[in-house]
Amino acid sequence: MPSETPGRPQGVFAAALTPLDETLAPDHGALIDHYRWLLAQGCDGIVCLGTTGEANSFSLDERLALLDALGETELPPRLIVGTGCCAVPDTARLTEKALAIGAAGVLVLPPFYYKGVSDDGLFAAFAAVIERVADPRLRLYLYHFPKMTGLDLGLDLIGRLIAAYPRTVTGLKNSSGDWDNIRAMLEAFPGFDVFAGSEEFLLPSLRLGGPGCMSATVNLLAPQTAALYAGWRGPEADAAQDRLTALRRALSRYPAIPAMKAILARDRGARWANLRPPLAPLGAAQRDEVLAALRGLGLELSTAA
Amino acid sequence: MPSETPGRPQGVFAAALTPLDETLAPDHGALIDHYRWLLAQGCDGIVCLGTTGEANSFSLDERLALLDALGETELPPRLIVGTGCCAVPDTARLTEKALAIGAAGVLVLPPFYYKGVSDDGLFAAFAAVIERVADPRLRLYLYHFPKMTGLDLGLDLIGRLIAAYPRTVTGLKNSSGDWDNIRAMLEAFPGFDVFAGSEEFLLPSLRLGGPGCMSATVNLLAPQTAALYAGWRGPEADAAQDRLTALRRALSRYPAIPAMKAILARDRGARWANLRPPLAPLGAAQRDEVLAALRGLGLELSTAA
Repeated sequence: MPSETPGRPQGVFAAALTPLDETLAPDHGALIDHYRWLLAQGCDGIVCLGTTGEANSFSLDERLALLDALGETELPPRLIVGTGCCAVPDTARLTEKALAIGAAGVLVLPPFYYKGVSDDGLFAAFAAVIERVADPRLRLYLYHFPKMTGLDLGLDLIGRLIAAYPRTVTGLKNSSGDWDNIRAMLEAFPGFDVFAGSEEFLLPSLRLGGPGCMSATVNLLAPQTAALYAGWRGPEADAAQDRLTALRRALSRYPAIPAMKAILARDRGARWANLRPPLAPLGAAQRDEVLAALRGLGLELSTAA
Repeated sequence: MPSETPGRPQGVFAAALTPLDETLAPDHGALIDHYRWLLAQGCDGIVCLGTTGEANSFSLDERLALLDALGETELPPRLIVGTGCCAVPDTARLTEKALAIGAAGVLVLPPFYYKGVSDDGLFAAFAAVIERVADPRLRLYLYHFPKMTGLDLGLDLIGRLIAAYPRTVTGLKNSSGDWDNIRAMLEAFPGFDVFAGSEEFLLPSLRLGGPGCMSATVNLLAPQTAALYAGWRGPEADAAQDRLTALRRALSRYPAIPAMKAILARDRGARWANLRPPLAPLGAAQRDEVLAALRGLGLELSTAA
């Protein structure tokens, strides 16, 4: 059970997939069903419109409409909404919408088109969003994903942002895939909520005071990840982490978003495999390879929403 | 003089800067003045809203409004408009607007958030834009800028796009900074208009049948670049290229967009130095270093618009 959502989010967050209809538009109904299913599977919350949710492949209007649809449900207090775009006005507008529907927080990429930009420039971009939104309810998570953005959010920049906006810049999603980097952030900023971007690092981050994980593969591995989170202080935790890590790694050997959508499409209908370009579908043979690998590790998947 | 604009664009294109007002919104009047000045300086055409124009730092609405303002002028037949976004619907909408105002073509980045995507996925993204726009007037230039996008547009993908859309996919801007890559494209696709992304490669590309260059630093080096283009078959061409290359390299030792805006701000007022985050201003000391380097190479700058 989520103990502090919508206070201070913690625990297991699925970086949720976005189901698409036959025109490749977001299917709001299927999305809401999927989010509810993930919560029923044990997630504490949902990252909506993150990398896994193909957010940047949707127009601003498509994202606003999706958030409006979620605003009609009970889900917003369980949501952290990805709002980071290349353009500050777009990031600010999505952030305002996330607040308006009552989301627990926002997850903000640095503006990711330009490379080699200075910390001053990145600081100014985050500051411009925060000052444009100008809302004391804003809880902003920095989104550190250097493989996608080509940008580093270093300790110095993070420290400057926390110092300037201590009530707003309250955490970070670390999708570097690098435990040393996650550990350095947890150690540098006690009380700052550095979520591991993979369940592979859930137990070690909890042991260093981390709040939990936000991960793509939790779309399929929610029960296992939630069980580890529930029992992380217990004697079985290391073994549970090892089993979970093996599952995560098996899934990560394939393009994770197409692979998970292909797997969900078996129980939920072919449309679930749809992807926006530039992501491309996984063939049936590859899908069956992933499934065989997961079954070989003892995973029983039941994905009917 | 542009011999074939708005037929088949060729020659020297400035990847134009976008002047901003005190709120960091595009200043349409100053932009139109700057474009006219670049043409008066000898440019054959303008790349509007490219990387140098900070396009991805503006919202879709800001970009549409800027194109509408240009649509009220004589400029569109001289414009190639950057329209490539992460989301296919945004790219399509900007492309439609560029066509509606009568632009000579569009320059389209691959969707640049995801990395490691397949050629199939990139092909599908370009195809989706072309088929959504569905306009026989569309002249689309692929925008190859791997340092910014983290993506490769390889010969195989380019060949597939040309084969599928021979009347639409008519050229490419190669901003790889790698002559071998530019040469490989010119040699692989005769008649396909591979523009060099830097005036440093203008002469060698013209000698291989290339159409010209589209370059950021032409914002300051238009007369020199236009002179080389006009005389490229003459006996002074190699020496002119060497002088131009030295100027380009001197300018490129600094962040080019902030440096050029800082230089233009001397004659045109302090607002011209404004940048959208994440780009950050160049200090006065650095600006003076660039100017001294350019002067040391014999450049006499006159930048009053």
